[in-house]
Formats: sequence, C-alpha cells, structure tokens
Amino acid sequence: MTSVQTLVERRERLLGPGNPLFYDDPVHLVRGEGVWLHDADNNRFLDCYNNVPCVGHCHPRVVKALCEQASQLNTHTRYLHENILDYAERLLAKFDASLDRVALACTGSEANDLALRIARVNSGGEGFICTNATYHGNTTAVAQLSSIFEPIGGYGEHIRMVRWPDSYRPIGGLAGDALADAYVDEIKAAIESLERSGLRLAGMIACPIFANEGLPDVPRGYMEKAIACVRDAGGLFIADEVQSGFGRTGQWWGHEQSGVVPDIVTLGKPMGAGHPISGVVARGALLDNYRRHEMYFNTFGGNPVSCAVALAVIDVIDDEDLVANAAAIGRYVLDGFTELQAKHELIGDVRGRGLFFGIELVNDRETREPAAERARTIVNAMRHKGVLMSKIGEHDNVLKLRPPLCFSRDNADFLLATLDEVLAAV
Amino acid sequence: MTSVQTLVERRERLLGPGNPLFYDDPVHLVRGEGVWLHDADNNRFLDCYNNVPCVGHCHPRVVKALCEQASQLNTHTRYLHENILDYAERLLAKFDASLDRVALACTGSEANDLALRIARVNSGGEGFICTNATYHGNTTAVAQLSSIFEPIGGYGEHIRMVRWPDSYRPIGGLAGDALADAYVDEIKAAIESLERSGLRLAGMIACPIFANEGLPDVPRGYMEKAIACVRDAGGLFIADEVQSGFGRTGQWWGHEQSGVVPDIVTLGKPMGAGHPISGVVARGALLDNYRRHEMYFNTFGGNPVSCAVALAVIDVIDDEDLVANAAAIGRYVLDGFTELQAKHELIGDVRGRGLFFGIELVNDRETREPAAERARTIVNAMRHKGVLMSKIGEHDNVLKLRPPLCFSRDNADFLLATLDEVLAAV
Repeated sequence: MTSVQTLVERRERLLGPGNPLFYDDPVHLVRGEGVWLHDADNNRFLDCYNNVPCVGHCHPRVVKALCEQASQLNTHTRYLHENILDYAERLLAKFDASLDRVALACTGSEANDLALRIARVNSGGEGFICTNATYHGNTTAVAQLSSIFEPIGGYGEHIRMVRWPDSYRPIGGLAGDALADAYVDEIKAAIESLERSGLRLAGMIACPIFANEGLPDVPRGYMEKAIACVRDAGGLFIADEVQSGFGRTGQWWGHEQSGVVPDIVTLGKPMGAGHPISGVVARGALLDNYRRHEMYFNTFGGNPVSCAVALAVIDVIDDEDLVANAAAIGRYVLDGFTELQAKHELIGDVRGRGLFFGIELVNDRETREPAAERARTIVNAMRHKGVLMSKIGEHDNVLKLRPPLCFSRDNADFLLATLDEVLAAV
Repeated sequence: MTSVQTLVERRERLLGPGNPLFYDDPVHLVRGEGVWLHDADNNRFLDCYNNVPCVGHCHPRVVKALCEQASQLNTHTRYLHENILDYAERLLAKFDASLDRVALACTGSEANDLALRIARVNSGGEGFICTNATYHGNTTAVAQLSSIFEPIGGYGEHIRMVRWPDSYRPIGGLAGDALADAYVDEIKAAIESLERSGLRLAGMIACPIFANEGLPDVPRGYMEKAIACVRDAGGLFIADEVQSGFGRTGQWWGHEQSGVVPDIVTLGKPMGAGHPISGVVARGALLDNYRRHEMYFNTFGGNPVSCAVALAVIDVIDDEDLVANAAAIGRYVLDGFTELQAKHELIGDVRGRGLFFGIELVNDRETREPAAERARTIVNAMRHKGVLMSKIGEHDNVLKLRPPLCFSRDNADFLLATLDEVLAAV
C-alpha cells in the first residue's frame, strides 16, 4: 500500500500546499459502509463526523439509483425529464406549503450565491447580515458572508456581522428573553449601520442551528425576533440548511425547531449523500421574480442522475425512519455526553440537536477559558482509537460530531466509551 | 407515457416559469447511447449539440468507473485518497509543463469564480476584461463577466468589455495584422479606462475559441498580442476552456491553436462527461500564492467518485483516439458545410475547429444582415428531422453544433443530408 507520506507529498506537488487535511496523522481511506470507514491498513473507523453520507456510506439503494440512471441517460434541464420533477415534488412536500419552488445547483456555495441574488432582487436592497463566526461557502460573493476566513480584497461595505447567539458565553451575562433581545439588538444595529451607509437591507443569512458558530442552545425567541426584525427592514431571511437539513436535527429541517418559516432555504451536503447536488427552496413569488431579472441555468444542476440519487436519499431517510432515529439516538448520545461532563472537568458544556453535537472544552469551568489545544489533542487521540470527529466554534474548542443518520445505539456506546477513555488520558 | 404538455406544466409549477427549455416543441428524453438520444415516443435523435457527454452518452467505461467507486467510497479531500492524485497527474500531463497545479471544484462557474480570485491575489489588481458577447457562468462574481445577460445590480466598475475578434464582420473592415491589432487596441483602451478609474488590471478571461461569441476565425496573432498586452499591464490571462477543452477542437485544449500558454485555465462541462466536476489549472506559484491568502475547500470537489469518472473520461479519449477523431471528422463536416454554403444563399459563413461548428446565417450575403429568425426555424426543423443542435452568437444567427467526440463519418453524412434538406425548405 502507498504510504501516507508518499500521498501527502504527491498532494503538495499536484494540488499545492495549503489543501486542508484532517488529523496530525492523516487518514488514507479506501472503503466505506454504513457508519464505518476503512483505511489502507485495514483499520476501521466509526464515522462520527460526516454528515454528507447521511444515509450511511455507499448505501446500496443510493448507489443503485446512481448506476441505473447513469447507464440510461444523463443530460441537462433544457430537455424534459421526469426525475427533476419527481424530485422537486418529493422535496417540496417536506417544507411548509409557502416554500413551493426549487432551483437546483451542484454545491452549497452555488445555492447560497443564488439565494443572495434572489434576496437582492426581491428586496431591492444589497446589504447582508451574517454572524461573526460562520462560513457559508466559497464563491466570491458568499465568501463575503464567511467570517471564519477573510475574503480576497477584504469585506465589502454591504456586509454586517452580528454576534452569534452564544448560550454558553451570553452577551452581557444575560439570560432568557433579555438575552434573545440583546442578540436581536445586534441585528437592529447592523440594519441601522447599513442605512447610515446608504444601503438597504437585502437579507440575513444564518444556519438555523448555528453549526459553525458552535451549535449553541439558541435563546428562545431569538429566531422569531431576528426574522421579524429583518422583514421589518424589507429584507429576507435565508436559512442555510446545508448542514442542518435532511433530518440531521431529528426534524427534517433545522428551522423547524424555532417554528418560523424562512423566506429562502438553501440545501447541499447530505442532499445527494455525496453526489454533488444542491438547491434553493423559496416562496414561488421570490424565485419567479428573480428569474424575470436574471437567467439562471446550471449545466449539471438538476440532471437526471443527480435527481435520481437525491430522490433515493429521501426514500431511504423515509423508509428507514432516519429522522426519528436521529432524534432518538441523538437524545441517547446527548445523555451520554452529559454523563461524561459530570465525570470530566474539561467538558464545560454539552449541546446537541438530533445527531449533531457540540462538546465545549474549557480549561476552567469558572472562567470558561476555551481549551482549544486539548480539543485538538482529543480529536487526534480519538482518530487513533478508531473514531473520526473534528472541532469547530468561534474559539476552536468545541468537539464537533455529526455521524451518518443510521447511527445506532451500539455505535453510540462505542463512541461514548472511547471518548471517556480519551478524556481520562488527556 | 407522460405527455410533453403535462411535463411542461409540472416544471412551471415546481421550478417556476423562465427555466430555459430547448425547441418550440420540447424534447422529452429517456435514453442516451453514444451519439444518439431517444425520446419517450421512441424517436431517435442524432446529438449534434451536447459537448458534455464528450465520449458519447452513457459510455460503459465511464459508467463502470462511476459505479465501482460509488459502491466503494465517496468522501472529501480532507482524507487522503489516490484518485484525486492519479487524476491530477493524468490531467496536468496534458498541459504545458508550466501549468503544474490543479484545484478541483464541481462546475465551470465555480472554476471561473476561483480563477478570478487567483488572478486578483497574484496581480494585486481588481479590474477584469471580457468580451462583449460572452458568458462564463452563473455565480455573482462570474455573472459580471457575462455580457449576454445583465447581472443583478448591474455591472461593477471593475469590468470592461471589449469587442470580440469577429472575423466575419471585421472591425473597421480591416483584415490580417491590422485587424488583430485593431481588436488588441480595444484591450489596451480597456486597460487605460480601468487606470483612469484608479483600478489596476487583474486579468482578462476569454474562451480561446470564442465559442459563445460565435466561433470566429480568430485573426492570426490576436491571442499572442492580447495576452502580451494583458501581461504588460500586470494582469493574468484566464483561458476559459469549459467549452473548448478535452479534445473538442481536435487538439486537447483550445488555446493550443494560438500557440500561447495561458496563466490560468478553467475546465468544466466535458470533464466528467456529465458528472459534476470542474477544475482550475494554473502555474504552481499562482495557485500556491492564492492558497496562502484564502482557504479554498470544496466539499464535493475532487471526491474519489468524481475523480474516478474524470479519469475514465481521459482514458476513453486517449484509448479511442477521440482527439484525432474530432480533428478528422471535424474537417470532413466542415467541408460538407462549405459545400452547403455554395448551394444555399442563406449561409453567409462556415467556421469550425475540430467538432465545434458555427454556421452563420444571413439574409443577404452583401449586407451580412443576421438571419436570426431563420436560424430559429432551422433549429426547430432539424429537431423534427431527428438532429439536435442550437444557435448562438452576438446576433443569435449562428447555428451551433458540438456533437460528442465519437461522431462518425456516417453521423456526419446524416447531419449534412438533413441540414441540406431543411435549408432547401426554409
């Protein structure tokens, strides 16, 4: 087998340095099945990180749908084909009735880029609000809304960043309604700041569970008030469901938790379980009005193969009851993490929704000083004990876990036991 | 079978109006094989339009590579995998040695969006030049460089459009070197105009065969002089090979024709024969410097399945000698079109390179008045006689043909005979 070092050297030579790679000792994967990944040395890893293969790695029904359609026809949407229509129907049925149109693309970045333009056309504004610890994708326009990396040329004057609704380090030490209001005040201030610059608000984009920010327990009422505030200023609310969608949270969509219905929803990652497909779901009037102003055609977007795959993903989620599984196993895992918190001083906070977890590590529970270095140590130690996960958050100290939705109680027990061991050794 | 009307209505309801659809009587495709497409009523069409399935529809080797890898593993590039490295090696070997790094994405739009940023970082400028009759993709940033559709919010002050090197309606009635110089003067003027606005040039982006503009016979020396002029001003030249790449022109890359080597090359459409994969190939120093300034990670870009597919596409092109086929059959078809030109007054000009053809229709050969309406009639008539093609160009009067690269002499004879018939009846 090719050694890891050789592969790393080939990567540098062909792709250049600076291509992100997980772990101090990178993993060379060769096979995946369900929640398991296998490396070239026959080690097996429990995948507690990858949300993209949401139905499990290489799900036979998804692979079958892919192969059958790819053997038959793959074209673009300038010809008629049932697949895109069958898929659109199935997908839209999972949303509130007001969200009744879809446009398909290939990546979450493309979906968010398109959503920004839909918001611009329909609001007549150009200003956008995002949080101060997020990432929404990699196009030039979307990189402007990603506070984690500064974009080439710096931020435009049309961008305003607001504090994310941190529940563990609450703004002003507030709680309850007062805390939600304080975070919403940030949005109001951003809108006023845009107005002072002579810019009208086009919209706000946010992941409804603030996954990149660190998966906070969003203060009750925050989302409703935030959206109302954005709409009052003539803007649209874009829910970036690229991470939170397709059952991840134990509900179909992350925004369901808050009870509010966004104006525009963007979809990606798990949509095709690894096959490049993404989409924008919106109120018909918004998408139709956009299309009157700009022609949008995506050569690969909505092709028969992508739609066959994405349809199989919804079928599997439904038939295997994976949303309910995410909710049930998610609760079980969260309870387990809470027990670990009682045992290990390092765990400052445990948060989660469905099968998406954040474990916030602190050097001191009193000061809540982020334990970023130890988070890194733990992620690497878990990799060597056969569990793949990562870390995230404004302070880079939150263990990030998002296993495939078919994660079982046995898998959870293995994860919990391994993490317990690793925490004890740090 | 579902009627065309029902499908059109479902599209409007689910996707909204304004989704582009080919032909007055849209085609409902169900199956593809080689150069043939089949509709739901068992009609078969000779595909003279689709460059994406470059090796032919549903090529067994490409489908096999797709299915095998999809059954085994599909992840992202934060784990090590051979496929992306094997592919990068094969791909880069097709370029001049100076173009020695690749970044992979999913769509041509993403590739161009990334190329613009690579040019910005490395030039220190922000101004871009494109032609006045082109399209490079659909992200917010790339739409700025697409003169065919006006972008949301209008064009930025950093964009300058220059006249494309039209050979049939030459600027100032010039010819030869004087014509090339006149078009290059447009680029010089654009650079000066940017400077007057206090903007430095970042680069120029162009399809090396000016496919969207109408596939002109580019005046000899134009490309060399254009690139020199851009480089003299500190800018980079981006060759958008999304249409012209992968053997289409009878050479591997469209830019080979001119003998110049671009700084950055973008790839898309035929790269995965329909599977969503795209890329940016550049001089290592340019891509590496970009990566020092901005993290670029694409969840689906360069995944093992996409790379297996793209590798199979190169294998098939090589093993079936499709580049040579494109050159040989291309010449045969072009000769046939030239014979049709002698016979049909409507054909003002015939142009082509490999298996990419433009037939310019005019109402009057003297005045060269564009015959856009008759171009439309012919495209629709050909569809009813079993040949799929389209039209393009600044005046929308150029018949556009780009069949799969496995197009045969028999296919060519069928195309030529059908076009002869249709032209006689217009």
